[in-house]
Amino acid sequence: MNLLAAPRPVILDGDPGHDDAINILLAHASPELAVLGVTTSYGNVALERTTRNALVTLALIGSHTPVYMGADRPLLVPRLSAESVHGQTGLDGPLLPSPAREAEALHAALFMIEAVRARPRQVSLLPTGPLTNLALALRLAPDIAPLIREIVWMGGSLDVGNWTPAAEFNALCDPHAAQIVFSSGVPLTMFGLNATHQAIATPARIAPFRGLGTPVGEVVAELLEFFAEHHRERYGWDGGPLHDPLTSAYLIAPELFGVQPMYVEVDTSGGPSSGRTNCDLWRVTGRAPNANVAVTVDADGFYALLTERMGRL
Amino acid sequence: MNLLAAPRPVILDGDPGHDDAINILLAHASPELAVLGVTTSYGNVALERTTRNALVTLALIGSHTPVYMGADRPLLVPRLSAESVHGQTGLDGPLLPSPAREAEALHAALFMIEAVRARPRQVSLLPTGPLTNLALALRLAPDIAPLIREIVWMGGSLDVGNWTPAAEFNALCDPHAAQIVFSSGVPLTMFGLNATHQAIATPARIAPFRGLGTPVGEVVAELLEFFAEHHRERYGWDGGPLHDPLTSAYLIAPELFGVQPMYVEVDTSGGPSSGRTNCDLWRVTGRAPNANVAVTVDADGFYALLTERMGRL
Amino acid sequence: MNLLAAPRPVILDGDPGHDDAINILLAHASPELAVLGVTTSYGNVALERTTRNALVTLALIGSHTPVYMGADRPLLVPRLSAESVHGQTGLDGPLLPSPAREAEALHAALFMIEAVRARPRQVSLLPTGPLTNLALALRLAPDIAPLIREIVWMGGSLDVGNWTPAAEFNALCDPHAAQIVFSSGVPLTMFGLNATHQAIATPARIAPFRGLGTPVGEVVAELLEFFAEHHRERYGWDGGPLHDPLTSAYLIAPELFGVQPMYVEVDTSGGPSSGRTNCDLWRVTGRAPNANVAVTVDADGFYALLTERMGRL
Amino acid sequence: MNLLAAPRPVILDGDPGHDDAINILLAHASPELAVLGVTTSYGNVALERTTRNALVTLALIGSHTPVYMGADRPLLVPRLSAESVHGQTGLDGPLLPSPAREAEALHAALFMIEAVRARPRQVSLLPTGPLTNLALALRLAPDIAPLIREIVWMGGSLDVGNWTPAAEFNALCDPHAAQIVFSSGVPLTMFGLNATHQAIATPARIAPFRGLGTPVGEVVAELLEFFAEHHRERYGWDGGPLHDPLTSAYLIAPELFGVQPMYVEVDTSGGPSSGRTNCDLWRVTGRAPNANVAVTVDADGFYALLTERMGRL
Repeated sequence: MNLLAAPRPVILDGDPGHDDAINILLAHASPELAVLGVTTSYGNVALERTTRNALVTLALIGSHTPVYMGADRPLLVPRLSAESVHGQTGLDGPLLPSPAREAEALHAALFMIEAVRARPRQVSLLPTGPLTNLALALRLAPDIAPLIREIVWMGGSLDVGNWTPAAEFNALCDPHAAQIVFSSGVPLTMFGLNATHQAIATPARIAPFRGLGTPVGEVVAELLEFFAEHHRERYGWDGGPLHDPLTSAYLIAPELFGVQPMYVEVDTSGGPSSGRTNCDLWRVTGRAPNANVAVTVDADGFYALLTERMGRL
Repeated sequence: MNLLAAPRPVILDGDPGHDDAINILLAHASPELAVLGVTTSYGNVALERTTRNALVTLALIGSHTPVYMGADRPLLVPRLSAESVHGQTGLDGPLLPSPAREAEALHAALFMIEAVRARPRQVSLLPTGPLTNLALALRLAPDIAPLIREIVWMGGSLDVGNWTPAAEFNALCDPHAAQIVFSSGVPLTMFGLNATHQAIATPARIAPFRGLGTPVGEVVAELLEFFAEHHRERYGWDGGPLHDPLTSAYLIAPELFGVQPMYVEVDTSGGPSSGRTNCDLWRVTGRAPNANVAVTVDADGFYALLTERMGRL
Repeated sequence: MNLLAAPRPVILDGDPGHDDAINILLAHASPELAVLGVTTSYGNVALERTTRNALVTLALIGSHTPVYMGADRPLLVPRLSAESVHGQTGLDGPLLPSPAREAEALHAALFMIEAVRARPRQVSLLPTGPLTNLALALRLAPDIAPLIREIVWMGGSLDVGNWTPAAEFNALCDPHAAQIVFSSGVPLTMFGLNATHQAIATPARIAPFRGLGTPVGEVVAELLEFFAEHHRERYGWDGGPLHDPLTSAYLIAPELFGVQPMYVEVDTSGGPSSGRTNCDLWRVTGRAPNANVAVTVDADGFYALLTERMGRL
Repeated sequence: MNLLAAPRPVILDGDPGHDDAINILLAHASPELAVLGVTTSYGNVALERTTRNALVTLALIGSHTPVYMGADRPLLVPRLSAESVHGQTGLDGPLLPSPAREAEALHAALFMIEAVRARPRQVSLLPTGPLTNLALALRLAPDIAPLIREIVWMGGSLDVGNWTPAAEFNALCDPHAAQIVFSSGVPLTMFGLNATHQAIATPARIAPFRGLGTPVGEVVAELLEFFAEHHRERYGWDGGPLHDPLTSAYLIAPELFGVQPMYVEVDTSGGPSSGRTNCDLWRVTGRAPNANVAVTVDADGFYALLTERMGRL
């Protein structure tokens, strides 16, 4: 990482959610990134909840980063929700502060458009939920596509899904939005389940957060412990995969990840594979790559980075 | 029609286009309607052309109604175009004035949102092209759905299509947008091909426009004559169907039309029937109607109305 | 009709069913046709019932035409049934004889293959149910496609469906089989709902059957009266459409019908239009016609023919 | 393996094809299996070629196992072919004998039906190509489903495809047939790409075949060497995966493989994921497993077995 470089302006777009919350913390703790705003959508829980969770997370670290509410539903398909994974509030687990402020009046998609136009070719978008906000922005203002520096998304999967056999949750939430984003021509990196499942928050990896002896360290540990339970039951794993913070980590320390350029098309057929991110791993389509697909994760390096950054808060 | 009633505020959303242009003329000539704005999208021709055509049409009658540019492409599918029907400019045929002004800066969808919020439950939307603008507005501002008085759309078909065996052009242009609108819960009337094909502009019906002896009458006659040629070739008809002005006419003189409430679902599967407006004519789905589907048109009454109104301009 | 011509060998393939039964009677009463066999499939009711109904119908007229059981389910989709229209037995209404024999051991599809190979370019197939048997025959023995004289099918629709807004019952029962048949290259005439709904069995048209004063006349009258009730309720019509006998009538008296060559593709997408027979009425696909689609029916002529023929039994 | 057990009757159904040919050799070399017949379909190359290749392979070892020709095309989709992988003949590479006989007259699907009915609950089917023959048999004779001992198929994939990003070649050839088989209720084991890609025929694994010093050993070595070239280019691997012989090997030495019960559904939507075998690895559908999906392969054990068996011929 180049400590002399100006911080890179980013917008965090998500549906917090345990791992979205940790991504918000990581981005704010990192001098390499300047968070212009946090935008929210429906997703793990309803929009009101995810927005409150974003505000709660920012309150925890005394941040004044503005929050913009976005989509309350997908473009076409009925809304899913993930209370089974994230609990009723979407941040079940630790005791968290009440937010002292509210979201801004501007819609998340309109904020994205304004921010990108104001800093052409500089702003990176880090969506960690359904891609509805970003899709609305791209269709409302097609001129921004060449002005976005890059998109780093947590979602999709190179192999199997986690919400249907074919589809990962964020992709399945709004397959049409995802396909709009993948076909936008914007430089795009995808952290799918095949990558995030390499970054399991085992007890041994959770302990150092608690060991920080700080409120933030304790909250992160409790978030990860709550999140782990679902995954222990369903997958038989010794912890949950920490999906979303890989996006910020990729901008901060790209050397931790291996990515491979591929053509990716999202299934929007409404059939049994709807929401699948079909990744042309073997280059059988003859189509030019439109995404970098993360394939390897240095999980120990990632957790070391995350622990060190949490220690700064 | 109730001449004592306050004029009904409407937004004309279209892709002019011969018949869209005549719809703009009809709405402006009718005291029952107050046109708040004309919004444009890609469709019959590209967005720049349709916007220019809207401005040209308004210039012809010296109107200052504001024009708002909207979507330049569909939500998901590749853009179609209808140069084969409407000619290169989208208004081939008559000699028309150059517009002395440009479209407003506000996006069509944002204008719709503002206008509807400003006049809750009063504004009717008359889309006569792809439904992309309206879909964007509904997803960006879900609160407006219960505030829209009604939507009267030219598009779809109860029976067969005109661009594929399954689909009518406006529906096929953006099946996903159409499905967003049909599932929005807003009161909706659909003038599909089954209705508009009852309103053929035969030479006998075109003559009275020319007989008005006015510039507008001459332009309308020439537009209809140009439009007729395509239909003579393809359908063997003695003129073209005057699709779009049925929407304004329906608000002005609903007694000219027979409509039937049905459940309508737009096919977005990407299969061979994509874009089809499946109308539950025989109530086999058990689903509550979400649209009034126009089934009968008093074509002579409609042309008499249109001729009379053109005479006022 | 050419009374000097040798009778045309036909195979009646169906799922009796009220109107299938009448088609069996019509074909047997007509010297223009030589019925090689009656083949059955699941459809209106289960295979065992439709097979029994075929045997019952033949017993009524003392016919020894062999009956061959075929498919008990569609190729891919789950089995529908139409007890709501045809009653529990599939022939509810009149009191009918018990059959004194059983179906042959040979499978319907294998019988079709044998019969067609034995009489190259002579045999016409008259399916009046799902097309599963015919599809199996065509895939099992691709060599028979050029050897079939023609197929006349009751099924599909040029406009709307009767089981979903998109699809007619026989097409919906097995869309994949229907698409196999439509893409087979065999000369094919389709009597869809748009045609059969022109041939309503009104009380005035039922009376002459009863007036024949024969057992067959009485049975036909009772079948039609039972069938009428469902249609009175659902469609508000003064009787049921007599779908299936149009196929035999078309071979006997083609002058009663207007047909139009079109390209027809059956929707097998599994989406909301699955089972729709997309008919290229306006020649917008640029594809060569693969079917004659019946568009007009001389209903009085048809009922006169049917009454006269029933009088011969 | 139990050397005292009676040999298990099997039918080899395939589209030889390099790896199909080796599977035929392996099955014939193994006393645990009694090959009742070899059935063929279109697939890697056209039906005439695959049938000739089956006869050629049997001629190589002087076998009189009867060969039955089956489907020359898929149920619904257009025929693919794999000349790019297998060469013009489908068995490019070694010099092979000309077959001295022809295929039997009986259709492959009818042979399967007869064989299964004759030995209820005894016959295992080993398809290593498109599943069209088996699907036709199951639909033509639904009574055989509970009489088939088991099906072991090479096809599909737990993760990505090799012909599209979603689909493996055999599944993509006829997705509808595959779904018929997967929904048949017959005990089914699937060796998809995720398994077969674990069994690469590296030079070190090819050498022992040549080392046998027999004509069969030489032919196998040459087949594998020809097959390897395509995979070196496309995948960058040091040899080709030996897909098909895993099916016979699984019956001979099940201890070499790890399988996991899952619910599998084949995508037949016609969308971008058509032909994908969606495997419910994480049990998210709540549906009961309908297949054992091979997940691990003891590749060295497999090649040792194969080499030893080739040495017997």
